[in-house]
Amino acid sequence: MTHPVPFTSEEFDSSLEELFAYLRIPSISTLPEHQPDMMRAAEWTAAKLRQIGMSRAEVIPTQGHPLVYGEWLGAPGAPTVLIYGHYDVQPPDPLSEWVSPPFEPVIHDEHVVARGAADDKGQVFINLKAIETLMRADGKLPVNVKFIIEGEEEIGSAQLEKFVIAHADELKVDVIVISDTTMLSLQQPAISTSFRGHLSMEVEVQGPAFDLHSGQHGGVVHNPIVALCEIIAQLHNEDRSVAVPGFYDRVRAISNEEREELAALYDEAELRRETGAPRSWGEEAFSLRERIVARPTLELTGIVGGYTGEGTKSVLPARALAKIACRLVADQDPVEIAELVRQRITELTPPTVTSSFRVMKMSYPVSVPVDNAAIEAAVRAYEHGFGVKPIFMRKGGSLPIVATFNQVFGAPIVLAGYGLPSDRVHGPNERFHLDCLRRGWSTAVSLYRELGKLPPEAYSTRG
Amino acid sequence: MTHPVPFTSEEFDSSLEELFAYLRIPSISTLPEHQPDMMRAAEWTAAKLRQIGMSRAEVIPTQGHPLVYGEWLGAPGAPTVLIYGHYDVQPPDPLSEWVSPPFEPVIHDEHVVARGAADDKGQVFINLKAIETLMRADGKLPVNVKFIIEGEEEIGSAQLEKFVIAHADELKVDVIVISDTTMLSLQQPAISTSFRGHLSMEVEVQGPAFDLHSGQHGGVVHNPIVALCEIIAQLHNEDRSVAVPGFYDRVRAISNEEREELAALYDEAELRRETGAPRSWGEEAFSLRERIVARPTLELTGIVGGYTGEGTKSVLPARALAKIACRLVADQDPVEIAELVRQRITELTPPTVTSSFRVMKMSYPVSVPVDNAAIEAAVRAYEHGFGVKPIFMRKGGSLPIVATFNQVFGAPIVLAGYGLPSDRVHGPNERFHLDCLRRGWSTAVSLYRELGKLPPEAYSTRG
Repeated sequence: MTHPVPFTSEEFDSSLEELFAYLRIPSISTLPEHQPDMMRAAEWTAAKLRQIGMSRAEVIPTQGHPLVYGEWLGAPGAPTVLIYGHYDVQPPDPLSEWVSPPFEPVIHDEHVVARGAADDKGQVFINLKAIETLMRADGKLPVNVKFIIEGEEEIGSAQLEKFVIAHADELKVDVIVISDTTMLSLQQPAISTSFRGHLSMEVEVQGPAFDLHSGQHGGVVHNPIVALCEIIAQLHNEDRSVAVPGFYDRVRAISNEEREELAALYDEAELRRETGAPRSWGEEAFSLRERIVARPTLELTGIVGGYTGEGTKSVLPARALAKIACRLVADQDPVEIAELVRQRITELTPPTVTSSFRVMKMSYPVSVPVDNAAIEAAVRAYEHGFGVKPIFMRKGGSLPIVATFNQVFGAPIVLAGYGLPSDRVHGPNERFHLDCLRRGWSTAVSLYRELGKLPPEAYSTRG
Repeated sequence: MTHPVPFTSEEFDSSLEELFAYLRIPSISTLPEHQPDMMRAAEWTAAKLRQIGMSRAEVIPTQGHPLVYGEWLGAPGAPTVLIYGHYDVQPPDPLSEWVSPPFEPVIHDEHVVARGAADDKGQVFINLKAIETLMRADGKLPVNVKFIIEGEEEIGSAQLEKFVIAHADELKVDVIVISDTTMLSLQQPAISTSFRGHLSMEVEVQGPAFDLHSGQHGGVVHNPIVALCEIIAQLHNEDRSVAVPGFYDRVRAISNEEREELAALYDEAELRRETGAPRSWGEEAFSLRERIVARPTLELTGIVGGYTGEGTKSVLPARALAKIACRLVADQDPVEIAELVRQRITELTPPTVTSSFRVMKMSYPVSVPVDNAAIEAAVRAYEHGFGVKPIFMRKGGSLPIVATFNQVFGAPIVLAGYGLPSDRVHGPNERFHLDCLRRGWSTAVSLYRELGKLPPEAYSTRG
């Protein structure tokens, strides 16, 4: 049963103006030229935390992009909830494919369209608005809250990891709430239970010492683009499994029961509709959803070499570069997999060129237990917000900081996401459904109320 | 025996200032934003033609970049020489690899370093200076001259081809001189005798309809970068021959004698020194030089897909693009080869993606006879300029307009080039040796004097 939303439609409409201001800041963490925007986005977040009543709210400098920390600890005896999110976004390119500019948010077809609308500013915003709603309604909160909104989620969360480890004692919390995931659909909310690990790498193939004329030297030196393509073409077997020896050695099998559940969640027609791909691809021995959430992958996220401008250039380039990203599942170790991939690429590199290999970022696969009081509170909150019980879902993506939270806090983690698979996160025309914002806001209000109903000890998973 | 150069060292030094002014104009024909620079370079050329005494010199608009035409017809009874060159240049990227900016020429290590220094502004300049020298010395020229300096050589010469065909009668000439090639070395000048044909194409592979999140959809749709690499990896056989059925069907074998000559011209050590490649690559049944000048090739001149900026982006891109360039030898037909490559790529495209194919430009392979009075005059001119007899050399590159000149004029063509294989044309740090400029200028003066010694009929190859 859906509860009535705890805000008026005027409040909702004016909240969109606030969200748009947040989305207008091009806080792209991977591009150095956006450093001033990172600071602006951090300051926007801190100002909003102050405005909704946090007793402390600050921008904390790091060796990378700043963290935003906010807290309100005025509910003695109530549990303390860490609310995590990130204000950084992915680069918007290819720019030409956006229907409207990525940092000029618009409402289109019942969606907010902008880079960061779903990942993750829109979901951070839901939590900010939920706390604001509770504070306005009661003059206080049902729980103590500590907000950590970071600026490096899209580039590996290295600074946050250091910060959390260094401040583990001060940060002590009873429950962790993270809103940076998708549900199955608007009709079927979901609580996430696992993330895949992530390993991103660059491979550069060097042929001649400098670019040559394709007529004067074509046919006598190995073209580094061709050599790189030949290497990449050998990274998958004919059955589409990853052709890196040892890659699957530590992959933990999942139960037949869960395999059947996963198989039922997603089918070929839905995949084609959702992605526009002519047909599916991948390991045929596994269902589509199982491939996404319970199998490791090796993807190419970028390639570049030679002349890529308009028209033609008769060049035989000196080098070509590929960006490779693996998603890993339990119990794969990204350090070990990076070494296996490096070895494989070295082995595949012919003596006619040289190759170099760099690890860019990595994170471990992680699972989140669901047999605890915090998850039970979240289940009730989604029932209030969406009118149906949420399901539990493994995720295909990665959220590097979850493994660190798991280790450092030992507190239950609630992956309370409000996005949809059709949000086009990381791609052009990223969007966030207005109903996700509306019902998410409502769900989050319920979530903090529900979490406040039990004492801190009820959430303890230790001792 | 080298003749004394027909200019003073002061004249040579001040000529460098003129050449630098020409080289400073970034006349990159393939990039639309350089259109104003194309006009500036054309006007510079026309102004120089007027200054050296042409009775007519004009910039002729076309549907593409303008042509420059100049003429002096004050030598009745003497042969008429068409002097061809081009004022357009290749794009300078990768910019970061230039030691000095590409359009700010400098003298470094006895070379003029700038985009276009050798290809082809420096060689156009040699002919301009030679005519200037003759005009100053005698107040007239030993031959009638018609200059055609085009702005589209690097993009296929389509406008010039139309112009030449449309004005075949007015343009009637007895000899054609083209300076846009290399010699073997400073010690061994060479007259070129053939060019390979050229065929440049683009292949785009499309997977999903828009960029996806590599975690959410990796492993279930065919990554277009991977698919493109898999296609490219299948375009060469294990023996490094081109894996396109029918590709070699019309390749004309060359004589064993010429094969031996070619084998002696170039070796592995020289290739490594010249290119910095770890070792050679290519069809092992053919010598290095034979592969360059007498065998067809298929090269990748560019590839791009996904995220290519700094750092990482978790994207599974919608598409990936490759630029493919073939060099063709007699009797291959670029129209036919384009179709064979298209068919092969279609056949290699798996049903999990779609591919599209575009032909960007093409030209036919062409040979130039050397048993005529014009070539004999050129041989004497090189002996004057360089002190040794030039050799005859097949070229690996392409010069699309030569086939048209051959068909339309039926006049002997003298490929009197003054560049060196180490000029880095099309690559970063393109350069032109000061001795090439000095001796080339001197050779060109001799060439026009030698050509003027016989009546027009002496050059006729028809009837």
